[in-house]
Amino acid sequence: MTIENISENKVFGGWHKQYNHQSETLNCQMRFAIYLPPQVASGQKVPALYWLSGLTCTDENFMQKAAAHRIAAELGVALVVPDTSPRGEDVADDDAYDLGQGAGFYVNATQAPWDRHYHMYDYIVSELPELIEANFPVSDKRAISGHSMGGLGALNIAIRNPDRYTSVSAFSPISNPMNCPWGQKAFTAYLGENQKEWANYDASELMRQATEFVPALVDQGEADDFLKEQLKPEVLEAAAKASGYPLELNRHPGYDHSYYFISSFIEQHVRFHAKYLG
Amino acid sequence: MTIENISENKVFGGWHKQYNHQSETLNCQMRFAIYLPPQVASGQKVPALYWLSGLTCTDENFMQKAAAHRIAAELGVALVVPDTSPRGEDVADDDAYDLGQGAGFYVNATQAPWDRHYHMYDYIVSELPELIEANFPVSDKRAISGHSMGGLGALNIAIRNPDRYTSVSAFSPISNPMNCPWGQKAFTAYLGENQKEWANYDASELMRQATEFVPALVDQGEADDFLKEQLKPEVLEAAAKASGYPLELNRHPGYDHSYYFISSFIEQHVRFHAKYLG
Repeated sequence: MTIENISENKVFGGWHKQYNHQSETLNCQMRFAIYLPPQVASGQKVPALYWLSGLTCTDENFMQKAAAHRIAAELGVALVVPDTSPRGEDVADDDAYDLGQGAGFYVNATQAPWDRHYHMYDYIVSELPELIEANFPVSDKRAISGHSMGGLGALNIAIRNPDRYTSVSAFSPISNPMNCPWGQKAFTAYLGENQKEWANYDASELMRQATEFVPALVDQGEADDFLKEQLKPEVLEAAAKASGYPLELNRHPGYDHSYYFISSFIEQHVRFHAKYLG
Repeated sequence: MTIENISENKVFGGWHKQYNHQSETLNCQMRFAIYLPPQVASGQKVPALYWLSGLTCTDENFMQKAAAHRIAAELGVALVVPDTSPRGEDVADDDAYDLGQGAGFYVNATQAPWDRHYHMYDYIVSELPELIEANFPVSDKRAISGHSMGGLGALNIAIRNPDRYTSVSAFSPISNPMNCPWGQKAFTAYLGENQKEWANYDASELMRQATEFVPALVDQGEADDFLKEQLKPEVLEAAAKASGYPLELNRHPGYDHSYYFISSFIEQHVRFHAKYLG
């Protein structure tokens, strides 16, 4: 598990660093970014908040625009930000922004041509944490968060792996992908027509059937252009009610789908996770 | 003075907005961004901090990456961010990143072909504040800051107009452009060979000769790749000492030239200005 450092910037007393590595799970070279807070300088292991980004993003959108470093530095939490799909010239792709590279949906694809590389679920749940915990002063205390497609990924991964994450949060998640255009298009391509497969990656379906819980926080802007057609937080809310899932869902008038919204509330999310990360 | 709103995002309870307008000074269409903090909702006029960006930037770099909105919202300060040069197909340009569009250096060009549009000094000092104060709930209390080429612009403009600005600050400014490659190249093109003209836009020359002062704060990363060849803060420091200019210059080990550095210290800059803006 060799990793290659390709950039570093000091920020709020800690270090933002980007790395390349050859992913076994994804069968291609991947880039990720990590923020190591100042506390690691004293030899301390810190817990990690994983962030899954939305459609078209890389590790850079969150690291440059979310304004999370200040709080992570204060609370002594590492931030780990992977890419949103496998990448490369020999990786299957599509001209649309919402399928293929930049749009991995954090699933394990079963359909050709996607099944050769698109195993983002396994990459996020297993390979990446193993890599991080082997190479950095980062403990196995993990929380997970994300935005839009990445909010969906974070919810799915935490609900399905309550033993591996202390807490989960999301901004503007695609809450019920089985019933929205983004999800139906991606799931048909990656998973085929069998909707039983889709339910493994539908946060509302998973939350409705959950019997083990992790604390969950979701924030949603009410001026989000994708709210009604793609995001459907009301379905997630109903699912949580049905199973008793500990979900706090907040709606914010005037806020849209952008990082301006995320940066306005990221402090609450990092503090929420830090409470459970200990 | 018509302005056209082209985008808006709620952030930290206030509004980030982008506008287009036809600039008389620059003889072309220009875009700027403004952040109006929540305090304006109560009908209150707020003071403004102008931000001048560095080479290759537009209004978006600062607004997306500097993490300034939180503090501006807390303190009730508007942020005004212009572009870094005139723009457009009929505006003179150069293939290099450090001359022409994106590299106006905040001077009034006197040499062809630049003199037709490149009057960024007058645009920032006069036209833009007039436009802002006529169209927004923003008072005539102004502070000015910037980064690199924009740090130079901010220092020049505040030192030459102590009646128009309460305070000035800069991150990693080009402190002595007459004696660095970026400055010599741009000043030769925009101002010609006469170095007496250059001195009007050299922050160290201006500071050395100043007799009226505004409080000045400069932050500089010690791991900045441009430090020795292009930025030369020691020349500015010596100039301030010679004239008794109230300059606080802080050096920060490990920090580079990027917005990761700016975001780490922007809070101190906005608080510094808010103290004088009242």
